[in-house]
Amino acid sequence: MAKELKELANREDNYSQWYNDLVVKAGLAEYSAVRGCMVIKPYGYALWENMRDALDRMFKATGHENAYFPLFIPKSFFSKEASHVEGFAKECAVVTHYRLMNDPEGGGVVVDPDAKLEEELIVRPTSETIIWNTYKGWIQSYRDLPILVNQWANVVRWEMRTRLFLRTAEFLWQEGHTAHETRDEAVAETERMIGVYRDFAEGWMGVPVVVGRKSENERFAGAEETLTIEALMQDGKALQSGTSHFLGQNFAKAFDVQFTNRENALDYVWATSWGVSTRLIGALIMAHSDNNGLVLPPRLAPLHAVLIPIYKGADEYAAAVARLGELAAELRAKGLKVKIDDRDNVRSGFKFAEYELKGVPVRLALGPRDMAAGTIELARRDTLSKEVVPQEGLADRVSALMSEMQTAIFERARAYRDSHITRVDTWDEFVRTLDEKGGFVAAHWDGTVATELAIKEATKATIRCIPLDGPDAPAGLGADEQGTCVFSGKPSSRRALFARSY
Amino acid sequence: MAKELKELANREDNYSQWYNDLVVKAGLAEYSAVRGCMVIKPYGYALWENMRDALDRMFKATGHENAYFPLFIPKSFFSKEASHVEGFAKECAVVTHYRLMNDPEGGGVVVDPDAKLEEELIVRPTSETIIWNTYKGWIQSYRDLPILVNQWANVVRWEMRTRLFLRTAEFLWQEGHTAHETRDEAVAETERMIGVYRDFAEGWMGVPVVVGRKSENERFAGAEETLTIEALMQDGKALQSGTSHFLGQNFAKAFDVQFTNRENALDYVWATSWGVSTRLIGALIMAHSDNNGLVLPPRLAPLHAVLIPIYKGADEYAAAVARLGELAAELRAKGLKVKIDDRDNVRSGFKFAEYELKGVPVRLALGPRDMAAGTIELARRDTLSKEVVPQEGLADRVSALMSEMQTAIFERARAYRDSHITRVDTWDEFVRTLDEKGGFVAAHWDGTVATELAIKEATKATIRCIPLDGPDAPAGLGADEQGTCVFSGKPSSRRALFARSY
Repeated sequence: MAKELKELANREDNYSQWYNDLVVKAGLAEYSAVRGCMVIKPYGYALWENMRDALDRMFKATGHENAYFPLFIPKSFFSKEASHVEGFAKECAVVTHYRLMNDPEGGGVVVDPDAKLEEELIVRPTSETIIWNTYKGWIQSYRDLPILVNQWANVVRWEMRTRLFLRTAEFLWQEGHTAHETRDEAVAETERMIGVYRDFAEGWMGVPVVVGRKSENERFAGAEETLTIEALMQDGKALQSGTSHFLGQNFAKAFDVQFTNRENALDYVWATSWGVSTRLIGALIMAHSDNNGLVLPPRLAPLHAVLIPIYKGADEYAAAVARLGELAAELRAKGLKVKIDDRDNVRSGFKFAEYELKGVPVRLALGPRDMAAGTIELARRDTLSKEVVPQEGLADRVSALMSEMQTAIFERARAYRDSHITRVDTWDEFVRTLDEKGGFVAAHWDGTVATELAIKEATKATIRCIPLDGPDAPAGLGADEQGTCVFSGKPSSRRALFARSY
Repeated sequence: MAKELKELANREDNYSQWYNDLVVKAGLAEYSAVRGCMVIKPYGYALWENMRDALDRMFKATGHENAYFPLFIPKSFFSKEASHVEGFAKECAVVTHYRLMNDPEGGGVVVDPDAKLEEELIVRPTSETIIWNTYKGWIQSYRDLPILVNQWANVVRWEMRTRLFLRTAEFLWQEGHTAHETRDEAVAETERMIGVYRDFAEGWMGVPVVVGRKSENERFAGAEETLTIEALMQDGKALQSGTSHFLGQNFAKAFDVQFTNRENALDYVWATSWGVSTRLIGALIMAHSDNNGLVLPPRLAPLHAVLIPIYKGADEYAAAVARLGELAAELRAKGLKVKIDDRDNVRSGFKFAEYELKGVPVRLALGPRDMAAGTIELARRDTLSKEVVPQEGLADRVSALMSEMQTAIFERARAYRDSHITRVDTWDEFVRTLDEKGGFVAAHWDGTVATELAIKEATKATIRCIPLDGPDAPAGLGADEQGTCVFSGKPSSRRALFARSY
């Protein structure tokens, strides 16, 4: 581990390599034998479980139930919604056969040519089609509405260039799919769920996000409107972290889902869908971590504190471990997840480095002098600061520190993010800001796809979102403002947020 | 719903149709547009969540961690373990292509012939191969052992004849995959986990099980020993409900996973795997339910009690609903999950039938006379008995009733099961018992595959297990006993448990 740790690339020199090293060496995930697919290792999965459980409680608190729909989708379903097929049915895993047989030539197993499916099945890249095909059987009347269903599932998109957590062929996610009587109710649901995502990102992950609308060009294939939360990573690139789509009546029309409304007339059902994925783990890592390893927000950390004995000889070892056992019990009684690392074949410096790499928020080291003085050394992962504190009241202190660190991690990320939103009014400034400073660039845009694509071609920056109205929008971006497009010079009534992104 | 309920087939006339009706009409699951794949509806999924969460706590309490491995397995992996390929690589979903394209003829989308995979990928039917290929990178020394990992995942086996929950092409399950230094440790793990499954089946599901070894013929493909829990359904058929496999060094050898042991020598790693699936939902339904619908054990029921107002006119309605709100709060304070059904467009008789169908353990109905007398009508789902009880102390009474019902449901199933284990000593008795009584038949068997297959051919009964030693074995089956095989007349030292099964 010490050797491996030394090999962690420097964040300032090679952000991308630093990220990959960190994910692998902290034991979060690794690539598998299947191209583009990852193995999520126990420590990474424990983090995902904490995220999933928190989100699941938020979904249930807003009235949603979980269900499960098939992994496979008949190929023809993708052709039913015209723009959806363009967006999703292309790079995907296609099941064509349902049986293998012994190779007549003796070379292991081969696909049985007689077991060809009549219609190919697609491994779901997203489930709107199979779900709306199912909802057709569930919905007859307005009394059957709303349907507020979420699914936790794996999905597959055949990505050519992959990166652990951020973009893999298979990933884990949740997808909410709701059905409503009215447009207004569906729009309200779309907004409610992007709000849930914002609250989760900021309150649990400690990652500040900008909430906004996607441009038409960046919209979900099949949506009338896509809302997004956009986060900023420490290299100045943006990361789309969650989306909520108002689907209008598009899928209801594609799958003929009509209902008898309160006026006793037939109408098509209104839909939303919304999702976040294991990509959030990537956001979490990239937003907070440093050259020593992960920095995890306490609310999601699989382990809150590690306790390490410092000793010479068997007697000091036994005394320190015994006392740590008592302290661990006090910490656990406060609901903290703690571990005593009593390995005696590993130096304590090695242990320190290991838990820094793994981002455990608090490290407690107890040596002979502490034993005598009734103190213990407390190290904070986020600031790397250390202090000697009394053992008395330790559990309360660590408990309070968890809230303090949760806030500090968020505030640090917010300060970085806020200092990396730059309002620019000329094309020259636009390009220079992207190249020299990075981050979000708030600029007037004429609202056309042509300009958006030309800007992307020239700078690799895309419109991350048009920030929503309201006091939550950073840097006063949530308001109309007259100006001229930085690229075309045409009039504009609102700034869009541009950035290079993952 | 009242109409639908009437259409529930009679359990005594057509068990199979009764089961299917029940699953669909209670809103647990339904078939999807994809052959053999089911949709697990919110009520069924809530049940699965409760089962999953209880099992997950038991796995963690026995030292296991969760992780996640790829959905896809390279075809060649299946050829590496000789018996595994025979058992699993045949009826499976095969991914051959990774892209669709617009049909040049204009007919929607078609598979892009240029996007053929070099090596086909199999949608996992079970994950031993991909996991042991991964463990190779995790294990160098005995210090890396044991690995105690579990995965919650979807798997696919291309079944021709499917039945909701019991046998579907895709299902949800957990698969534990552990790696050990020694044979003894791996054997102990295999036994520990079948014990966890027994405790879960009996303690949570209220389903009594026989724990035993599988015969060589019924063993998991690639295992040296398979332990099983076998449950008995109300139609006298057995259901394999969970298995735990001692895999020896088979997968370590197939994937070349060696470690440096404590003697500093290289050795192959010892393995186990164990799993239960959404099939358990089928076991639960079949073991307890009746012609009125589901009977759910309180420890797993998504809803413990439903509260229904009985009224004439708006005043009585308002008064009853208000009082039910107070009572519901008291019940919730005891940790009970309750719901007030205050729909005013549905008759109470309809509601009664609906919650009986859904197996809600307790129904509480509050009418004007109860309002005056301070009483409430309490109906128990398992016995269908009703009594009028005081509102005072209701929460304590319902709380206690949950434990009482949990025990009663288990004891009723156990009495049925125990009365359906028949010791027979002649072939004639064997056949007659299967045909006339059903259930488990405990008979001497000569231990050969030939006899086992001949018995199956003659009677459709298979060896469900050879019960393990110990006081837990029902009907004194956990002991050696000299006898002669009912089929061949050859000597036998132990009875095996035969049954027709799902």
